[in-house]
Amino acid sequence: MKKEKIARRTLLQAAAMSALGALIPGASAQQAPPEVWADPTKTPGVPVGKLGSRSPFERPEKKASDISARSPLQDFYGIITPSDLHFERSHNGVPNIDPDKYELLIHGMVERPTVFTLRDLKRFPALSRIAFIECSGNFRTGKETMTPQEICGLTSQSEWTGVMLSTLFREVGVSPKATWFLAEGSDAAVMTRSIPVSKGWQDAMIAYAQNGEAIRPQQGYPARLFLPGWEGNTNVKWIRRIELSDQPFMTREETSKYTETIRGGKIRQFSFDMDARSIITYPSYPQQVMRGWIEIRGIAWSGRGKISRVELSTDAGRHWHTATLQEPVLDKAHTYFRYLWRWDGQHTEIMSRAVDDTGYIQPTLQQLTAARGTDMGGYHLNPVTAWIIQRDGTVLFKPEKFR
Amino acid sequence: MKKEKIARRTLLQAAAMSALGALIPGASAQQAPPEVWADPTKTPGVPVGKLGSRSPFERPEKKASDISARSPLQDFYGIITPSDLHFERSHNGVPNIDPDKYELLIHGMVERPTVFTLRDLKRFPALSRIAFIECSGNFRTGKETMTPQEICGLTSQSEWTGVMLSTLFREVGVSPKATWFLAEGSDAAVMTRSIPVSKGWQDAMIAYAQNGEAIRPQQGYPARLFLPGWEGNTNVKWIRRIELSDQPFMTREETSKYTETIRGGKIRQFSFDMDARSIITYPSYPQQVMRGWIEIRGIAWSGRGKISRVELSTDAGRHWHTATLQEPVLDKAHTYFRYLWRWDGQHTEIMSRAVDDTGYIQPTLQQLTAARGTDMGGYHLNPVTAWIIQRDGTVLFKPEKFR
Repeated sequence: MKKEKIARRTLLQAAAMSALGALIPGASAQQAPPEVWADPTKTPGVPVGKLGSRSPFERPEKKASDISARSPLQDFYGIITPSDLHFERSHNGVPNIDPDKYELLIHGMVERPTVFTLRDLKRFPALSRIAFIECSGNFRTGKETMTPQEICGLTSQSEWTGVMLSTLFREVGVSPKATWFLAEGSDAAVMTRSIPVSKGWQDAMIAYAQNGEAIRPQQGYPARLFLPGWEGNTNVKWIRRIELSDQPFMTREETSKYTETIRGGKIRQFSFDMDARSIITYPSYPQQVMRGWIEIRGIAWSGRGKISRVELSTDAGRHWHTATLQEPVLDKAHTYFRYLWRWDGQHTEIMSRAVDDTGYIQPTLQQLTAARGTDMGGYHLNPVTAWIIQRDGTVLFKPEKFR
Repeated sequence: MKKEKIARRTLLQAAAMSALGALIPGASAQQAPPEVWADPTKTPGVPVGKLGSRSPFERPEKKASDISARSPLQDFYGIITPSDLHFERSHNGVPNIDPDKYELLIHGMVERPTVFTLRDLKRFPALSRIAFIECSGNFRTGKETMTPQEICGLTSQSEWTGVMLSTLFREVGVSPKATWFLAEGSDAAVMTRSIPVSKGWQDAMIAYAQNGEAIRPQQGYPARLFLPGWEGNTNVKWIRRIELSDQPFMTREETSKYTETIRGGKIRQFSFDMDARSIITYPSYPQQVMRGWIEIRGIAWSGRGKISRVELSTDAGRHWHTATLQEPVLDKAHTYFRYLWRWDGQHTEIMSRAVDDTGYIQPTLQQLTAARGTDMGGYHLNPVTAWIIQRDGTVLFKPEKFR
């Protein structure tokens, strides 16, 4: 069928329908664009095209501040974050990099200092893995009207593809005496972090693809460091330089930031692993539920391994039940959980807690405060999140004071 | 940092750089927009935003005809197809449906004929699975200058989420005497197919989400039938009606189309399963390779189960080697394979063949022709695909005549 024919017929029928007053009431409102047809079987549809698009009725978006943008966790189904909704955190904006001019230098305590082009990186054997990246500052609290996106939307998951850093380490001949490396970004912050060489040999990757296609600029185009399970800022984006050394580099981002005050005025530095965590995304604020059967849904993840169990309480923490984990349950990956619950219409609190395969149990905020003190700062906070279900079915976040 | 500050500083620096002639040559060409900076560390980047976007250097797109649009398989890494690059095949265009007016009727041989709204469907327990959908007419041949996209780009993979059809069958009380159901779309073709009830009880789903978010209009927004492993057209998009019966409905799409001529002038009808298949996506036309180590990459899939093995030949089929399968290897899912090969610079042919866990081995076109005859039509063709590597490293498709 020719495109012209479709267009002509569409116009004629739309005109006829309009004359009959058959167009949907409210079709001119913002949510319902004029292309909505009263009966889609009576009007040929839009021809196929080079790029698909969202329905005009669906407008998910990140919640952006000056330095970060949070994924709308409450809008998601499943474990893949659509790439344009992956959270963002940058230290001086997103650079626009020409992939043909991109270079990665690996030098320092190596036998053969080497500059790799993007084409070079893609020629090496590659690996893909589905895993999350989470900002270590991923916790907000304070009021009842907060969504999962606002509480902990700085975590997202993609299928990442790239070359293992261990492959490049062998290529350049990393010295056995090297114990740390510097990862340096080519953004305007020249973001730098010191990383133990052992992580480079274990599972670090130079990633150049995300969810099947080239990595997005907001996630480090054309290449980023990917350290599965480690705090987001160490996964240096737009990476341009790796320097091997026998000591950490003590960069600005590991002294002024990304450290945590613990008991006795001490500071915890190089706290890389993201601990196990979970959040119920349905029901959550500002949703409203009906009495009867409800499938409680959410995500759980751990930077230390697989999620082995998610426990659910529907009575404010008195009793706990085991949720069903949606396959596939992957290492260092968002894992979707489900739990079928019959709500009797009474006021209650629901909450989830994750357990990973190291045996670690997601703590409450009280437990975190007891362990670290009240001035523990804003990093690596992974408390159990509770939702209040009111008698009318409306859901509120249960904020807890901790400072 | 305030947005105004960023914008002002950006402008000032860009002006200074422009005056110094520091902007990249060719920055005004189509591929390199003027926002590319000579040194991204010297210019604050673009602030974070509500939606991410592709790099302007990356412009993947589907190849669209009047009725279908093919995924650019050669551009993909990993197993997830970006939703806007998922293949399209529609029978009278893509309808624009208001989700608040959407209804699914299930009736016929049931105890309780029921109309479900989208909200109703989402209240039921849900399931997610990563699986492919492939058009049964997914094979083209004819000339050496064909890409994977042109040869078999009518297959794509997503994480699909929805309610199991078996859940809805229990809800409406499907009669034990029902053996078939009609699936009817609400597009302008009113696409209809007859499906055995057994598939409905086994693993059929009414899917409303794709890759974490609402399903795209091109894939059936707000809900489609999803029949894992079965030919694409039976996965009726924009589904509005399911009618239970004790016989097939013999619709237009299962008589005039979607049947295959086999030997002796007979016709094969209701050939639902998509057989095991594979294709090497790198190297492929129009890529060029260099002498030395090459990681051969591609995808393999089967509508009957998991891929158990992919075999590779680098000498035109004389010897076969086993490729590495990228985890996760999932049921009825695109599976990524890799094989490291040292090319000596000589003219040769490379090819892959998939084996699934039923023991089925992907056939050659000769084997298909021997089994079905030369007038076998254009459906369910899954032959081994060979690429010719020329001495200069250029790659050509090896087309085989079959009609």
